[in-house]
Amino acid sequence: MVGIFQRSLRLRTALRHLSPQSPLSWTVTGRHTPLDLHCPFLPSTSWQFAVCSRKLHTGADRPSPAAAPDRLPFSRITQEDLAFFRKILPGRAVTDPDLLESSNVDWLKSVKGSSELLLRPQTTEEVSQILKYCNSRNLAVNPQGGNTGLVGGSVPVYDEIILSTALMNNIFTFDSISGILTCQAGCVLENLSLYLDDRDYIMPLDLGAKGSCHIGGNVATNAGGLRLLRYGSLRGTVLGLEVVLADGRVLDCLATLRKDNTGYDLKQLFIGSEGTLGVITSVSILCPRKPKSVNVVFLGCETFEQLLKTFQLSRGMLGEILSAFEFLDSECMRLLNTHLKLRNPISDCPFYIVIETSGSDSTHDGEKLHHFLEEAMTSSLVTDGTVATEDSKIKALWSMRERVTEALTHEGFTYKYDISLPVERIYQLVTDMREHLGGQAKSVVGYGHVGDGNLHLNVTSAAKDPALLAAIEPFVYEWTASCNGSISAEHGLGLKKRNYIYYSKPSQAVALMGDIKAMLDPKGILNPYKTLPDDLK
Amino acid sequence: MVGIFQRSLRLRTALRHLSPQSPLSWTVTGRHTPLDLHCPFLPSTSWQFAVCSRKLHTGADRPSPAAAPDRLPFSRITQEDLAFFRKILPGRAVTDPDLLESSNVDWLKSVKGSSELLLRPQTTEEVSQILKYCNSRNLAVNPQGGNTGLVGGSVPVYDEIILSTALMNNIFTFDSISGILTCQAGCVLENLSLYLDDRDYIMPLDLGAKGSCHIGGNVATNAGGLRLLRYGSLRGTVLGLEVVLADGRVLDCLATLRKDNTGYDLKQLFIGSEGTLGVITSVSILCPRKPKSVNVVFLGCETFEQLLKTFQLSRGMLGEILSAFEFLDSECMRLLNTHLKLRNPISDCPFYIVIETSGSDSTHDGEKLHHFLEEAMTSSLVTDGTVATEDSKIKALWSMRERVTEALTHEGFTYKYDISLPVERIYQLVTDMREHLGGQAKSVVGYGHVGDGNLHLNVTSAAKDPALLAAIEPFVYEWTASCNGSISAEHGLGLKKRNYIYYSKPSQAVALMGDIKAMLDPKGILNPYKTLPDDLK
Repeated sequence: MVGIFQRSLRLRTALRHLSPQSPLSWTVTGRHTPLDLHCPFLPSTSWQFAVCSRKLHTGADRPSPAAAPDRLPFSRITQEDLAFFRKILPGRAVTDPDLLESSNVDWLKSVKGSSELLLRPQTTEEVSQILKYCNSRNLAVNPQGGNTGLVGGSVPVYDEIILSTALMNNIFTFDSISGILTCQAGCVLENLSLYLDDRDYIMPLDLGAKGSCHIGGNVATNAGGLRLLRYGSLRGTVLGLEVVLADGRVLDCLATLRKDNTGYDLKQLFIGSEGTLGVITSVSILCPRKPKSVNVVFLGCETFEQLLKTFQLSRGMLGEILSAFEFLDSECMRLLNTHLKLRNPISDCPFYIVIETSGSDSTHDGEKLHHFLEEAMTSSLVTDGTVATEDSKIKALWSMRERVTEALTHEGFTYKYDISLPVERIYQLVTDMREHLGGQAKSVVGYGHVGDGNLHLNVTSAAKDPALLAAIEPFVYEWTASCNGSISAEHGLGLKKRNYIYYSKPSQAVALMGDIKAMLDPKGILNPYKTLPDDLK
Repeated sequence: MVGIFQRSLRLRTALRHLSPQSPLSWTVTGRHTPLDLHCPFLPSTSWQFAVCSRKLHTGADRPSPAAAPDRLPFSRITQEDLAFFRKILPGRAVTDPDLLESSNVDWLKSVKGSSELLLRPQTTEEVSQILKYCNSRNLAVNPQGGNTGLVGGSVPVYDEIILSTALMNNIFTFDSISGILTCQAGCVLENLSLYLDDRDYIMPLDLGAKGSCHIGGNVATNAGGLRLLRYGSLRGTVLGLEVVLADGRVLDCLATLRKDNTGYDLKQLFIGSEGTLGVITSVSILCPRKPKSVNVVFLGCETFEQLLKTFQLSRGMLGEILSAFEFLDSECMRLLNTHLKLRNPISDCPFYIVIETSGSDSTHDGEKLHHFLEEAMTSSLVTDGTVATEDSKIKALWSMRERVTEALTHEGFTYKYDISLPVERIYQLVTDMREHLGGQAKSVVGYGHVGDGNLHLNVTSAAKDPALLAAIEPFVYEWTASCNGSISAEHGLGLKKRNYIYYSKPSQAVALMGDIKAMLDPKGILNPYKTLPDDLK
């Protein structure tokens, strides 16, 4: 079951099992999410394998900072413990190894734990009882939503008890006036989207993993996704949370208010803390109206500077209807042509842009787009372009951006980085990396979310190549740090990236994170080995 | 140009005059803020005076929970202390009582401290030196921005040293591609707005106090204001903060990234913590483009239910251009007529709505508004209305909403409440209060931000009336609590409301706030007597 897929042949096989044909009723655009964001079964960096084998060395013979630390001295589960859990969760304390298998392994099949107990509570009270008991017994707990994370944060590292939110999937309320939805943490994002679709609303976030991921997990990891440019981050759209703390206390901050300035905003502590500070049991979230009109444009630019000017122009002329501004470079296009036989819909250019608009009036949106394109062409910012308004054409244009990762998997071994930078610097990293690596890499490609300043940098080689990795890292992290960028724009730190935190956060900040962890979870039972670096443990 | 149109015929005529041709020089920033939000020198509740006199009793003879607690055992300033501060801040350690006077008293003249030292640092390093010294000496500190707060949070209660950010007013950077501004905490909001105006951007928040308030204070109090419906709260738009902790440590979280998931988002701790956890020294914030087109509509409704349906319709039909949806009741209109001689621009109705749109295309915005108004009239949701597209007329219509507080001050003594509720409940509180008080009050009026679920409830009497106050409180707080509302939607808790926190937050949450305070400021020197209730001290 836990395969480590190697090389493109197996990957191609794996890709056939990916979900496109599954009845995904994607809402707004009808499109699929970029595979680079949340593609199951695709190795995203070389050290994923190391986490399984616990042997990876980066570069020369240094131990990988991604490798798991030694098991901490938590208690081991006894028969008395099992009896307790079976009593409070009749039929929902799972110990069958076969049933535990899929919960012990992450989506990417890159991290495998050895938990012997999976708990499936249905209520907040049950979660509270579980954590109170585990805390008193010093038993480690791995909170798990849809298990779709990419940094090894959602699976046990050793024998942590898996606490799944899968059975906590009730929608409590939806206020069709304010657009505020309240539900349990285990609701699957896609189910919430379908529920809202009937009510003329959408979720403020959309992810490739929507068919599996839980809203509680989305909040716990501060998931970004495709709608961030338009609707902002979960820090603004999540209005309230109910959280169970490590010792079983229930923290009720499940407000459904847009404004509330009574004391510190505690819910923010739990957004993006990856289950290390508490277990999110319920969520209230502000949902936008469903847009009535969607358009997609594919454009070509001669330089990245022109691309940035086009972005600026679009912000001014498309204004409130701009909902995505993505880019890919000519190397990406070459991969799309070569490996997926996708035809460039416009003439060859060094850079390509995908712009999406969504609004409440198709005539108006069409006119705005027309004026914008006229100006962009007249000013020679873009050299060629094509527009789609129909669903099938929209999907075809989006696929030029979304299938880059798939194309990359056919090119060889890929070293992947998810970097956040000041928007004007995002392509410089690609250029500098190309120069830095010289002939060492097969190709260095860049694509991503211009609107969010989020670059996906990918370096390919014929095979796994420790010397190449040593040339890439820590160069890529140091370069990012020198621009005050983030070494994890949206994926979080989890197990895999925890020790890279200092590239993006100063030591004082990391020390304060440690203080917060110690305050909320003094025994460290919640999702150990994750998010915080080993030197704080 | 701005007609007063009655009934559907006139409204339809008005629609023909909508904006395409009008040269709208008026922008969102150009108008005045509702006085009820931040009006200097207007008493907002009866107990403000009590804080000065330390004698107020609410209701019968209970001590007011708003009264200041006893002075805590902080050190008193010595000559050695003064010598230290004069050395590190030459000419900027102010002890002249006349110069200290305005910093010791809040805008409302309702709270007066007795600080004998005002420090005016210019740099983060100076703030760090000050706090390190104060912490070691156990000297209490009152961080102060523009001193425009309404809950006594921005002035000393006893002899706390005032640490002003007034001289920390440098703009560091503005990225015209991403719209990200980085500046010191003491920049005045209006100055930032003017700076951005030249660059075709606006600040994501706007307040009546913009001419005085500092961006650092805005962030420290999580200021709401007029643009929240459109651009969201500061929790989403603030991208980074630099903060000096109580012991002088500098916490650099001054990121300028839209996405960053590397560890806990520490800056959120300081947003809305009212200077009790650290002193914000620098801010980075995401700024929206300046809208090219603004329209304002004034409408009348027969029932609040119709008003809510109109809100829902506007969210669907105005969609991305809706930027404000405010309301006032007929009692407010009576006060405007009686005390300010403002004439109702439409026929008499039980409820009035002010809608603002802002967008990037005046023709499109005008058309959307036209269709929306036609539908609202056809469906009999609104009975009358008038539209303004020119600056002076827009201001005139806005004044019907903004000058309600001013009108109230002429009516007698006013008990004011700033309540956040699920949007469908906001007027029920007014109705219930009216019924509850019977003939005890002169008038009970309601107005506010429908879009944000934020009600301004005002009860007037001929003079200050403890019996009336006892009838209002805790009724208003209990009512709010029963709907999971907030007893402070946007003003914070400060000194005045700190003990009411339990109406909106459960004890577990308040206890955790106390833990956070103890972790970050173990000696409690930062803004003592504020935000947290006395029973945590």
